[in-house]
Amino acid sequence: MSSSFGQLFVVTTFGESHGPAVGVVVDGMPPGLAVRIEDIQRELDRRRPGQSALTTQRQEADRVEVLSGLFDGTTLGTPIAMLVRNTDARSTDYDALKDVFRPGHADYSYFQKYGVRDHRGGGRASGRETVGRVAAGALARVALATVGVGVVGGTVQVGAVRARAREWDEVERNPVRCPDREAAARMAEAITAARDAKDSIGGVVEVVARGVPAGWGDPTMAKLDAMLGAAMLSIPATKGVEIGGGFGMCERHGSETNDVYDGEKFLTNFGGGIAGGISNGAEVVVRVAVRPATSIGKPQTAATRVGGTTTIEIQGRHDPCICPRVVPVAESMMAITLADAWLRQRAIRGATR
Amino acid sequence: MSSSFGQLFVVTTFGESHGPAVGVVVDGMPPGLAVRIEDIQRELDRRRPGQSALTTQRQEADRVEVLSGLFDGTTLGTPIAMLVRNTDARSTDYDALKDVFRPGHADYSYFQKYGVRDHRGGGRASGRETVGRVAAGALARVALATVGVGVVGGTVQVGAVRARAREWDEVERNPVRCPDREAAARMAEAITAARDAKDSIGGVVEVVARGVPAGWGDPTMAKLDAMLGAAMLSIPATKGVEIGGGFGMCERHGSETNDVYDGEKFLTNFGGGIAGGISNGAEVVVRVAVRPATSIGKPQTAATRVGGTTTIEIQGRHDPCICPRVVPVAESMMAITLADAWLRQRAIRGATR
Amino acid sequence: MSSSFGQLFVVTTFGESHGPAVGVVVDGMPPGLAVRIEDIQRELDRRRPGQSALTTQRQEADRVEVLSGLFDGTTLGTPIAMLVRNTDARSTDYDALKDVFRPGHADYSYFQKYGVRDHRGGGRASGRETVGRVAAGALARVALATVGVGVVGGTVQVGAVRARAREWDEVERNPVRCPDREAAARMAEAITAARDAKDSIGGVVEVVARGVPAGWGDPTMAKLDAMLGAAMLSIPATKGVEIGGGFGMCERHGSETNDVYDGEKFLTNFGGGIAGGISNGAEVVVRVAVRPATSIGKPQTAATRVGGTTTIEIQGRHDPCICPRVVPVAESMMAITLADAWLRQRAIRGATR
Amino acid sequence: MSSSFGQLFVVTTFGESHGPAVGVVVDGMPPGLAVRIEDIQRELDRRRPGQSALTTQRQEADRVEVLSGLFDGTTLGTPIAMLVRNTDARSTDYDALKDVFRPGHADYSYFQKYGVRDHRGGGRASGRETVGRVAAGALARVALATVGVGVVGGTVQVGAVRARAREWDEVERNPVRCPDREAAARMAEAITAARDAKDSIGGVVEVVARGVPAGWGDPTMAKLDAMLGAAMLSIPATKGVEIGGGFGMCERHGSETNDVYDGEKFLTNFGGGIAGGISNGAEVVVRVAVRPATSIGKPQTAATRVGGTTTIEIQGRHDPCICPRVVPVAESMMAITLADAWLRQRAIRGATR
Repeated sequence: MSSSFGQLFVVTTFGESHGPAVGVVVDGMPPGLAVRIEDIQRELDRRRPGQSALTTQRQEADRVEVLSGLFDGTTLGTPIAMLVRNTDARSTDYDALKDVFRPGHADYSYFQKYGVRDHRGGGRASGRETVGRVAAGALARVALATVGVGVVGGTVQVGAVRARAREWDEVERNPVRCPDREAAARMAEAITAARDAKDSIGGVVEVVARGVPAGWGDPTMAKLDAMLGAAMLSIPATKGVEIGGGFGMCERHGSETNDVYDGEKFLTNFGGGIAGGISNGAEVVVRVAVRPATSIGKPQTAATRVGGTTTIEIQGRHDPCICPRVVPVAESMMAITLADAWLRQRAIRGATR
Repeated sequence: MSSSFGQLFVVTTFGESHGPAVGVVVDGMPPGLAVRIEDIQRELDRRRPGQSALTTQRQEADRVEVLSGLFDGTTLGTPIAMLVRNTDARSTDYDALKDVFRPGHADYSYFQKYGVRDHRGGGRASGRETVGRVAAGALARVALATVGVGVVGGTVQVGAVRARAREWDEVERNPVRCPDREAAARMAEAITAARDAKDSIGGVVEVVARGVPAGWGDPTMAKLDAMLGAAMLSIPATKGVEIGGGFGMCERHGSETNDVYDGEKFLTNFGGGIAGGISNGAEVVVRVAVRPATSIGKPQTAATRVGGTTTIEIQGRHDPCICPRVVPVAESMMAITLADAWLRQRAIRGATR
Repeated sequence: MSSSFGQLFVVTTFGESHGPAVGVVVDGMPPGLAVRIEDIQRELDRRRPGQSALTTQRQEADRVEVLSGLFDGTTLGTPIAMLVRNTDARSTDYDALKDVFRPGHADYSYFQKYGVRDHRGGGRASGRETVGRVAAGALARVALATVGVGVVGGTVQVGAVRARAREWDEVERNPVRCPDREAAARMAEAITAARDAKDSIGGVVEVVARGVPAGWGDPTMAKLDAMLGAAMLSIPATKGVEIGGGFGMCERHGSETNDVYDGEKFLTNFGGGIAGGISNGAEVVVRVAVRPATSIGKPQTAATRVGGTTTIEIQGRHDPCICPRVVPVAESMMAITLADAWLRQRAIRGATR
Repeated sequence: MSSSFGQLFVVTTFGESHGPAVGVVVDGMPPGLAVRIEDIQRELDRRRPGQSALTTQRQEADRVEVLSGLFDGTTLGTPIAMLVRNTDARSTDYDALKDVFRPGHADYSYFQKYGVRDHRGGGRASGRETVGRVAAGALARVALATVGVGVVGGTVQVGAVRARAREWDEVERNPVRCPDREAAARMAEAITAARDAKDSIGGVVEVVARGVPAGWGDPTMAKLDAMLGAAMLSIPATKGVEIGGGFGMCERHGSETNDVYDGEKFLTNFGGGIAGGISNGAEVVVRVAVRPATSIGKPQTAATRVGGTTTIEIQGRHDPCICPRVVPVAESMMAITLADAWLRQRAIRGATR
């Protein structure tokens, strides 16, 4: 199924960027848990466009409506359907693009796949699809909190600027969502420069899960690494993922990267909290490569549906750097993946954790 | 299901490193295709241990037996079960490790997950599990060949040595499986140095699919990027994956990385042949981070099952660099992923390609 | 996943009887097909309560809203989410039942499963959940029509009254939805008698698919019989299913029940259009046993949540015989099952049919 | 996946009737359970051909080999692959049938599906595929026994002869596997008469699970009824299934069939131990309609591959009534279905049962 993620905590999103609504059905949320709408809305507000000068100025209130699965504020164990109406969808912005395949966008590949075209703002390929993921992620966080697991994240690189610190409390205090206040300022400059040049810039988002006990994740095909990899690479505009030491380990030796467990804790964490595909009790650490946003104002050559090329300047309202808004989405996908792994491990061992 | 991969071309592996056998069931192989045992054996021979001084000296003939799904050399459309007996399993090599959790290995996390311990050479977590993947990959290659799709791969980095060329014909001519003859020699030196130091070294494997038409891969949750990410990160010892430009795009601008289609071809391939999760007709390019092998001869501190730590020196017969043997496995997982995506697209569009 | 059906044409329903809404997400609808809202609404109107004196008098307009997946009346290939608001949900009818487990209902088993209770009219176990199935079935019909497949159905038994004729055009002309006009009148009498006695009565619904080509359905575990069996037994209040000759074959010999194919057609259809789990080109014929409705006005003994029993008289507004309203639901599940099998066969053979 | 059953206790069978072997992979068996090969072999022996004059005289030792997943007699939690070699496969028996579609058999539908033909004894459609199911069922029984659940079954109807008693201890004492000694004798006569007439006869198999706690089974699409329905209708030669009161309820009223729970037990069991798709603590009761065996010696008209018809007399060695051998298969599918539901419920509630 192309629109579902997870085996026991199953998240199915729906909705096009400029259709009536976007939303999600979460099947598998454990019963008897208290869920407040504010818990969901708060996460959606983090993802929402128009939060700062660094993001798109599209205005969407993104108010969530819960259609099922809750009774008197408690989960029933039944599917939880959630809906967000599209209100500020200026489809006319896109009329000029009707017969053009925008470079870097999914216009051409979607058309080749389906043989039909929804030219209104990317349709299903739009980042707006992630609204459903974030709403589902909010539920996953509620579930994980019952076993003491939490997820944090932030932008750790923009262009050549890298965060050194990992002060997670700092993340919501700067518009870049960087866990390093000093680096955040320089990242903001890089983003502003890109925006002023009618261009965009890439970056890296890091997500960390704390409190994950040893034993989550399935070996071989459903390794926790593999599930997190799929989760992250299913987010629009991501083109790489690494766990723990990641690509940096390629230049190292085993005597450095073998994480030694001293009977109480791991002395290093090159495995990113996962060994053999199974969590080992250390922090689960994932980094995601975010490409420069494909919607840019600069003139670009683009193929047309009838053949030949043309020059386009994408108007619309777009993000010069997607990282700040990818943060809550990546956190959500991490939470969803872990909730699924948790339920799997309950099935295997029958224990609470 | 922890041991299955794919939705329509479904690969289920089984077997422990030192049990009676390892194998695989492939369900979904299209009917009416000619398959020769040699096609499967040849790929297994590439994965086989003991091929050169750079790999483990464990001797396994790895002769495949096909148990079902073929009749007169033709696929029936029914499940194809394949079996390889374990013959050179010196389990006694591992008796000393019975109550020790080897650093970097999955010993500890497996024990926490299942509550039981198979200490014989890693059991299910062993790289030997990949025998089934390579046998399945051989079938996927046969299927893909009918629509003109082929997969190649090689080691493109070992330690600090990077391949510049991509001469795929060169790969089987050097023991590192590097597509750059000159770099291969220096990589071999780095591996030999690690081996002589009773240590191991990491690297990067690149896999490329040629001939993939536009339209394969599902959007949102089952993006081709996501499926390839899961495929690669399910291979033992991998800790990162990137598609096309990958992490390198983080330092670039959209005006550079937006792949322009001129109506006939893409002028660049930062997307790695995939846009919006769907293939766009360019080469599909994936790179995989391979950590240094966790089995090393150097003395290491290790936790024991009863508490406290001890010092171990892993004897056994191990690979100082896993990259050369990961190459056929990564190619196989790429082929399996694409075969699945191909069948999905046939379901959606009903066409041959 | 408890709320999803199908592998390639995937139907996920959500919603409780007395919550804000019920609905469905259909993932896998082929792209490029024309869908009119009327096509969906017409089927929902057939399922709707309050259609005649023989059904519940609960009044629900059951207006469908399509939230995604359609653009300019054409399917995009993306998930189609559909919503029906609950408007006439008199939850207060159920306050008296808050701590009582109604006999025959799912009250007790749901409570044992989830540990929480939604006492408002059956919650998720209510027949109202089938709104989503019927909306999805309407889409499945559109898809199947493109390859010449249609589904009909009707009530063929109520109490001891059996239909002899199979005049499918007759079905919508009588409130029992019986394909035999004469039997329909007697069935209506039986239902009225049950209603007047504050009781309910059981029956049998038959569903037939015409135009199904040979080759649909997968052997062994996913036989078309098995998928239809699951589809039908997932409908509330069903407790049996038979294909073709069904239970009647138990008293026959192979020389009678072996369907002979004369090179052009089958001379008999004891297999119900399926051999070895695969369609053979004959009509696919399924019959479903529908138990008497569990909501009855007669005084009944019921266990209470605190222990012990009490006597209850269920007020509410209920169906004395569910068969007439099961007909569109069973047709929908047949259509959904066949749409899924059709797409599976396209994946396997690559052909249009 | 056509060859897999279950979501958490996943059973994948492989093998053709006259190929090298048949077998199964069971993924999801809980770790730490003691399994003896005899536990598996004993069930296979019950299914084995040649047990009495009432069954086929094909001689197969059906010795099982366990290839993985066990270590020192204990389950590891990893996939358990099991293999049975085909030894008495007289494929030449079938040469005459190479270009003929046997009536009632899956020859024609398989050929239409796959476009290739395995004429050797039904190939994948053969009852021999159930070897894997029975081996998997033996494991499911071991798992269920840890929570006090057991499965029994027997032939309760052959032709017009019905069992009245349900003396399950009697089942293995008569060749019909009937839980009613007196009826068993008359059933044996009916089967012998059919055999002597070179014909076959149908029947009904009943399977009962005892000790199932309330709360197993998922609502809506994965109701326990639906999963059992799919499980039973996936067995070759079955064409109907009913739960509890089944089709018999069609002639009754709700005031009779509403199972009253008196706070300790259910006074009746028309629901067959399931309400709303979830077990309620009563015995789970399922009956399966078994058609007359399609392989009969009597002359029959059969279509040929080149067009037109011919007359055939099937030689081979066949069962005049399949019920006695369906019993262990139906029990196995019941056990597999319940093991899966048990693990699902552990995931949902985290409890041991």
